[in-house]
Amino acid sequence: MSVFTPITPDQLTAWLRQYSLGSLVSMAGIAEGVENTNYFVTTTHGRYVLTLFERIAAVELPFYLNLLAHLARHGIPCPAPIARLDNDYLGTLAGKPAVVVTRLDGACVETPTVGHCTAVGAMLADLHIAGQSYGGHLANPRGARWWRETAPRVLPGLDADAAALLREELRFQGRNGLNDLPRGVIHADLFRDNVLFTDDGRISGILDFYFAGADHLLLDVAITVNDWCVLPDGGLDPARTQALLAAYHATRPLTVAEHAAWPGLLRAAALRFWLSRLADGLAPRPGEIVKRKDPDEFRAILLHRIDAGTDLPWIA
Amino acid sequence: MSVFTPITPDQLTAWLRQYSLGSLVSMAGIAEGVENTNYFVTTTHGRYVLTLFERIAAVELPFYLNLLAHLARHGIPCPAPIARLDNDYLGTLAGKPAVVVTRLDGACVETPTVGHCTAVGAMLADLHIAGQSYGGHLANPRGARWWRETAPRVLPGLDADAAALLREELRFQGRNGLNDLPRGVIHADLFRDNVLFTDDGRISGILDFYFAGADHLLLDVAITVNDWCVLPDGGLDPARTQALLAAYHATRPLTVAEHAAWPGLLRAAALRFWLSRLADGLAPRPGEIVKRKDPDEFRAILLHRIDAGTDLPWIA
Repeated sequence: MSVFTPITPDQLTAWLRQYSLGSLVSMAGIAEGVENTNYFVTTTHGRYVLTLFERIAAVELPFYLNLLAHLARHGIPCPAPIARLDNDYLGTLAGKPAVVVTRLDGACVETPTVGHCTAVGAMLADLHIAGQSYGGHLANPRGARWWRETAPRVLPGLDADAAALLREELRFQGRNGLNDLPRGVIHADLFRDNVLFTDDGRISGILDFYFAGADHLLLDVAITVNDWCVLPDGGLDPARTQALLAAYHATRPLTVAEHAAWPGLLRAAALRFWLSRLADGLAPRPGEIVKRKDPDEFRAILLHRIDAGTDLPWIA
Repeated sequence: MSVFTPITPDQLTAWLRQYSLGSLVSMAGIAEGVENTNYFVTTTHGRYVLTLFERIAAVELPFYLNLLAHLARHGIPCPAPIARLDNDYLGTLAGKPAVVVTRLDGACVETPTVGHCTAVGAMLADLHIAGQSYGGHLANPRGARWWRETAPRVLPGLDADAAALLREELRFQGRNGLNDLPRGVIHADLFRDNVLFTDDGRISGILDFYFAGADHLLLDVAITVNDWCVLPDGGLDPARTQALLAAYHATRPLTVAEHAAWPGLLRAAALRFWLSRLADGLAPRPGEIVKRKDPDEFRAILLHRIDAGTDLPWIA
């Protein structure tokens, strides 16, 4: 249960007077999520999500909230922050920075089809082109600099093979010149549990932008492919990978430089999540009972991408 | 049929490349509406309405589009304009100023209940308080100044009784001092056909803001009550009127000055629509086959409000 800060209906009723959202009908804590406290909130106007930020630095929140507002007004189906009567998105509730966003319908897909991957590729490209006109800037918080800060913390806990793999991969990525690749705001965490679909296969929600930042657009594609197109052994399903890439390419054409960089970025995307899962294992949060995700899943994906070399699915 | 400017799917497909809205799935002209050309547009992202502005001055459009965006981000369920890749809301299609807005679900209510009137009163108050932080300004385009410009045009076509009524009402309104009343952005046309409800009685849409402008907030309440709470003879249903006013008052408390001004503003609200329907009858648009609305309906409402004097439903 990820309600770190409990809120009562009376507290929320009083707090909602700072909005033009009508009156409170119901509220319910949301079990998912390990970063923030979230409640489903229904008012006479509609269905919303209340988020109390437990970990993100307050100084970074305007980047995320303005990004959500920007993407929503460009037609990306992400949670849209609701402005308060003072015209700001961010308030304070129970001493925490807090925001109300629209609640999106739909359900996650556990076992994506080629059709789902096509929809995700097209939506990711639209997200990237809509993000080009966003004025805010924040470096990818889990980018190359973070890898180099984090590796020394996790290395002591690794066996010899894993430690060698991590050191070698950091060396490889350090040599990987990416200056020519298009950059922009990336979601950076577009896993299956962050996309909602309607019953008829349309994407109705892109969730959880709190790892977003500026980086190579193709890294976002690699992160997405590594989750949506993965086989049980860590390899890539060619049909799903090609469908996702082709749909992306139809909206934002991929460049020759991006094709050349693709194998290295699939490895970078695997490295990033292997590292963060290793780091999460070092520092469990007090009172938290959320099941930790297995780092070895991404170690296997990384090994598969290294073994594949340049023999990886690309646009057919 | 109110498609004054026909658009082909090829034209729309090309035009949608200026957005991050995915690709065109279907389009269909909308028969309702006498001011603009409207199409329902479905893309791979969702359901939208395309509007080509046929009559509104281009210089006034940013006021309306920014108002819709402002209210939508404050949680008012109005059509939200979609930003283009250049970050602007307004484009040009077939030589006309054009915009894409979100399409809202729900259906209009022909015969409102006390429950519908409660929902409308609360929503109108939320619209007014959300509008207080809107930075744009445009005078009510059908305000007192417009009455005085329009009356001389319609008077020659009126019979002696109607002409005397119009002259006397303009005199009465000219003496009606309203300086103490709260002002702000008003919708100014919140008739039953501009509100959508879900099946469970929640308001899912507030439509057609193209008569909005700055005026007395209570005038908006009067316009709304004159439509939502009217009886077949033009009188007011006390239960519905009191429900709408009480719900409004619970969100934005009405002042003593507003109570005193209420009978006069109900007359002003009736005068405005009597005048505009008379003026519409003078100048039918070429090629238009929309049925004109009957001015006498609002003449009857005006007479009823005059006869009632101060004996009008107010908050119980």
